[in-house]
Amino acid sequence: MKSHTKHIWIETKKRIEFLNITDEVQKEIDVSGIKEGLCLVNAMHITASVYINDAEHGLVEDYKEWLRKLVPGKPEDYKHNLTGEDNAYAHLMRTVMGREAVCAVTNGKLDFGPWEQIYYAEFDGCRKKRVMIKIIGE
Amino acid sequence: MKSHTKHIWIETKKRIEFLNITDEVQKEIDVSGIKEGLCLVNAMHITASVYINDAEHGLVEDYKEWLRKLVPGKPEDYKHNLTGEDNAYAHLMRTVMGREAVCAVTNGKLDFGPWEQIYYAEFDGCRKKRVMIKIIGE
Amino acid sequence: MKSHTKHIWIETKKRIEFLNITDEVQKEIDVSGIKEGLCLVNAMHITASVYINDAEHGLVEDYKEWLRKLVPGKPEDYKHNLTGEDNAYAHLMRTVMGREAVCAVTNGKLDFGPWEQIYYAEFDGCRKKRVMIKIIGE
Repeated sequence: MKSHTKHIWIETKKRIEFLNITDEVQKEIDVSGIKEGLCLVNAMHITASVYINDAEHGLVEDYKEWLRKLVPGKPEDYKHNLTGEDNAYAHLMRTVMGREAVCAVTNGKLDFGPWEQIYYAEFDGCRKKRVMIKIIGE
Repeated sequence: MKSHTKHIWIETKKRIEFLNITDEVQKEIDVSGIKEGLCLVNAMHITASVYINDAEHGLVEDYKEWLRKLVPGKPEDYKHNLTGEDNAYAHLMRTVMGREAVCAVTNGKLDFGPWEQIYYAEFDGCRKKRVMIKIIGE
Repeated sequence: MKSHTKHIWIETKKRIEFLNITDEVQKEIDVSGIKEGLCLVNAMHITASVYINDAEHGLVEDYKEWLRKLVPGKPEDYKHNLTGEDNAYAHLMRTVMGREAVCAVTNGKLDFGPWEQIYYAEFDGCRKKRVMIKIIGE
């Protein structure tokens, strides 16, 4: 069994920002030389997500608007913010969008449907954070 | 390390429909000959989900009703639909329900609790779509 | 390829209770002897979750309050409860929080960002339930 591990660093310019990282993940699969296996991609920080969906600008904007409705209220409504933080909303938005994607690797490629793209969703950005890419297989 | 990959095709009769696919997944584990490993099951389309929960008709109906409340409004409220699509709701419902399940395979069987069942949840059906089953192990 | 499987038993004192199980997971990785691989951690019951987020008491309370808003209404509003159950809410809360976490194992350790902690979230407790820990790798 082979394995390959890569932490990629991301620093978004906006506090909430979504980035398509599909090519970075495929690049690491290429580097690994693994042809058949599984690839884990996860946010290593707890106010960001990795998820798979459409690379469509309108949908990304819909996500942002929808998450604001699912996580309502003011910063002071959340007990987490009593610690001096102001990012309780970001922990909850990340929970809706998920921490990780596990992807099949077949014949050295992400074995995806026609529209699957891997996104990094940042909810408390403007600082350096890491994304895990780990591939195991043969 | 062994691996086994299967794309199964699903075409639901209704636009929103939930199907129990546990037996299909176990069948592929049998075919693989893998006794110890991990099994990834994911929707390969971005308006459908794979999730694990109860095989209980009332709960399935509750899910459908609840998702309509979590994803409110009219089609024209969503920017994704400005592209000519009408399925923004389906992308968001799939996000709540999740893309994938990763299952332990022990002694050649899905190593599940007493009520765990693997469901495919279609939110924009009446057309052919694929589900990935990928097993790695020994 | 090596694999290691452990079911841990949990019985919470309250119906809804969140427990940090990170140390139990790392202990099983130690027992496995696996240095490079993937570790699956999942609730084996369908009214409980495994998720990764902050070990911060205020955030845990925020989760409980937020989930009550996302899963509103009375027990009799849910069809699942027509079977004699009263825990439809718990199936839906578990869906929001997720069933599983897949973790990278690097150099024999959970390869985590600085704040990642693995939680078991019980939504219908006061009875014995299992959590799966399965590690594969080398």
